[in-house]
Amino acid sequence: MTPRAIRRLKIRHPRGETEVRIGAGALAPAVAELAPWLRDRTLFVLTAPPVRRLHGPALAALTTSAARVVELEVEDGEGAKTLVHAERLWRQMLTAGGKRDSRLLAFGGGTVGDLGGFVAGCFLRGIAVAQVPTTLLAQVDASLGGKTAVDLPEGKNTVGLFHHPDWVIADTRLLATLDPAELRAGLVEVIKMACLLDLELLDRVERDLESLLAGDPPSLVPVVAGAVAAKRAVVERDPEEGDQRRLLNLGHTLAHAIEAVLGYRRLRHGEAVAYGMLFALRLAARRSLDPHVVERLRRLLARLDLPSLGVLDAGALIACMTRDKKARERGLVWVLPSALGAAEMVSDLDMAWVRRELEDFLTDPWGRDSSPVAQGRT
Amino acid sequence: MTPRAIRRLKIRHPRGETEVRIGAGALAPAVAELAPWLRDRTLFVLTAPPVRRLHGPALAALTTSAARVVELEVEDGEGAKTLVHAERLWRQMLTAGGKRDSRLLAFGGGTVGDLGGFVAGCFLRGIAVAQVPTTLLAQVDASLGGKTAVDLPEGKNTVGLFHHPDWVIADTRLLATLDPAELRAGLVEVIKMACLLDLELLDRVERDLESLLAGDPPSLVPVVAGAVAAKRAVVERDPEEGDQRRLLNLGHTLAHAIEAVLGYRRLRHGEAVAYGMLFALRLAARRSLDPHVVERLRRLLARLDLPSLGVLDAGALIACMTRDKKARERGLVWVLPSALGAAEMVSDLDMAWVRRELEDFLTDPWGRDSSPVAQGRT
Repeated sequence: MTPRAIRRLKIRHPRGETEVRIGAGALAPAVAELAPWLRDRTLFVLTAPPVRRLHGPALAALTTSAARVVELEVEDGEGAKTLVHAERLWRQMLTAGGKRDSRLLAFGGGTVGDLGGFVAGCFLRGIAVAQVPTTLLAQVDASLGGKTAVDLPEGKNTVGLFHHPDWVIADTRLLATLDPAELRAGLVEVIKMACLLDLELLDRVERDLESLLAGDPPSLVPVVAGAVAAKRAVVERDPEEGDQRRLLNLGHTLAHAIEAVLGYRRLRHGEAVAYGMLFALRLAARRSLDPHVVERLRRLLARLDLPSLGVLDAGALIACMTRDKKARERGLVWVLPSALGAAEMVSDLDMAWVRRELEDFLTDPWGRDSSPVAQGRT
Repeated sequence: MTPRAIRRLKIRHPRGETEVRIGAGALAPAVAELAPWLRDRTLFVLTAPPVRRLHGPALAALTTSAARVVELEVEDGEGAKTLVHAERLWRQMLTAGGKRDSRLLAFGGGTVGDLGGFVAGCFLRGIAVAQVPTTLLAQVDASLGGKTAVDLPEGKNTVGLFHHPDWVIADTRLLATLDPAELRAGLVEVIKMACLLDLELLDRVERDLESLLAGDPPSLVPVVAGAVAAKRAVVERDPEEGDQRRLLNLGHTLAHAIEAVLGYRRLRHGEAVAYGMLFALRLAARRSLDPHVVERLRRLLARLDLPSLGVLDAGALIACMTRDKKARERGLVWVLPSALGAAEMVSDLDMAWVRRELEDFLTDPWGRDSSPVAQGRT
């Protein structure tokens, strides 16, 4: 299989359009495409030191058209997403003479993208931003759709805004340096979008999972492109997360609580989402979801060979979920699959029942003792 | 003259509409109008202690329809517009169980409105906000158009976003408790909008200036309504401050520098804007503005009996202006009146010439020694 050409697509949003480029080697042609966006401008480049060490020359090539480049850095990881770092960056940008028509380029994973988007969105009431995601998770999800945020001690992503990027350049060659666990975490979000939105993509992921987990570029390109196209459709219909876009929170109700209870250590976001999806499948199975669908998705997630969930307390997770920002005044909202390619928002679940289900789930997340299909075959 | 009925108007913006109510006693009918917006919601009310002391019962009446009211406070004045205060408020809101469908009501002057709008705009990526402005400046200008911000040591309003309110309730009876200097500062922004956008409003302000300065409600209502209507037209054409809306920055290029050099003490924002307008008139007169227009506007501003400018250094002001966020990469932008009802954006002024003009201005801000009209009459 030869690498495909660079995919180009636009995402419309309330304030304009995001130009997206996807492909193995997408950075090289982007140099010329970004030139008019950078010409005569001050460009702030936000990255993390490990990313700069790996991809410094590619980053330098991308920024040559700017009148002036000001380099900004944050540590790698969720710890960078704080108001302290945002304030430090804003003050550096003001001291360096940043103006309303300056640009910001966020080059890194989800942390750099979330923080960079927030910093750009609030600097002088908003400057234009380009996202160059360097992880699979950021390429298929975090860099798209304008969600930006930092964390507070009371919760993750609790301060932020919608600030859509002008550009997203997803070069799958950047994924070659990723830890396999990072690829796996990104694939969870791909599976989530595929089972909700694109069953051909789901087939492809099932077929190519081993080469995807190995970071094989010819396998990754169509999967990244498929996930981006699926997310685009949702973002365009619902750019600031009314109900449609919230369907993408499948698995996230529990995942955010797992991450918070673990102190954002041990499990990656994507890994927590995988467990969140498993729990959503369990609740959906108790309602009306076809057990064969449950089993198909469980088997796919099982092939990811996730780290174990460990021992978690159901009460602590439920307390955490009810504080989550996704909760509305009228109670906790669950996204539950109702079929392949369909899900529903459910807010009237009895919490005592949810708690019992959660306790069972925590002792047997894969439902190996209770799956009707599995039972049928034993 | 009898008080007029409540004026109602809508301001369209990219994410919806702002409902505006203006009048003497506008708060009373707003109680019923706000009820559906508040029903079943947690409402955060942000105000300053002196405002609560003066208007506590009116505020309490306005919030009765909310499921739950959480009171938030900030000190009065520009010192409240910091990230430290914003973070404190976000954390209080999370601890109190704030959700995405919670509401925030900002009840106070420009500081409370700017900070409240920013806090609402970034809380969980944006919750709906209502503005109840209690100063003339906030009623005619700051509460409208979605500009929100906090300050950094490097500059005022340097961190913020556009977050349009759902409601603006401008009750001119709240102005009865204002210091006359506050009314004067607000009238400067009215004069600015009138000379750019509404010459009938300019005639009215000239005619009624003394009763306006005295806080006379029947005089204030049509002036607030006229200024709001003028600002609406600009905001709707240009909701996020491209060139059209930037015409409203008439006088602000120098004003922000004056305020910064004075450490935001001694002169109010509106007073600094009056001096900024005087300087813009001087530059415009040197280009092509009719000297009779210059003289007419100078005379009107002179009737405000502004506090003196004191001794300021031209070099410090120019250094400050070139750092201002309104500057673009390509140089300092001036808004200069070209006639009554018209102004132009000028970015190619020779800075050595501007500096000489500024030095002259600082010794003789009213141009009493150099006005061609005055010279013609001596």
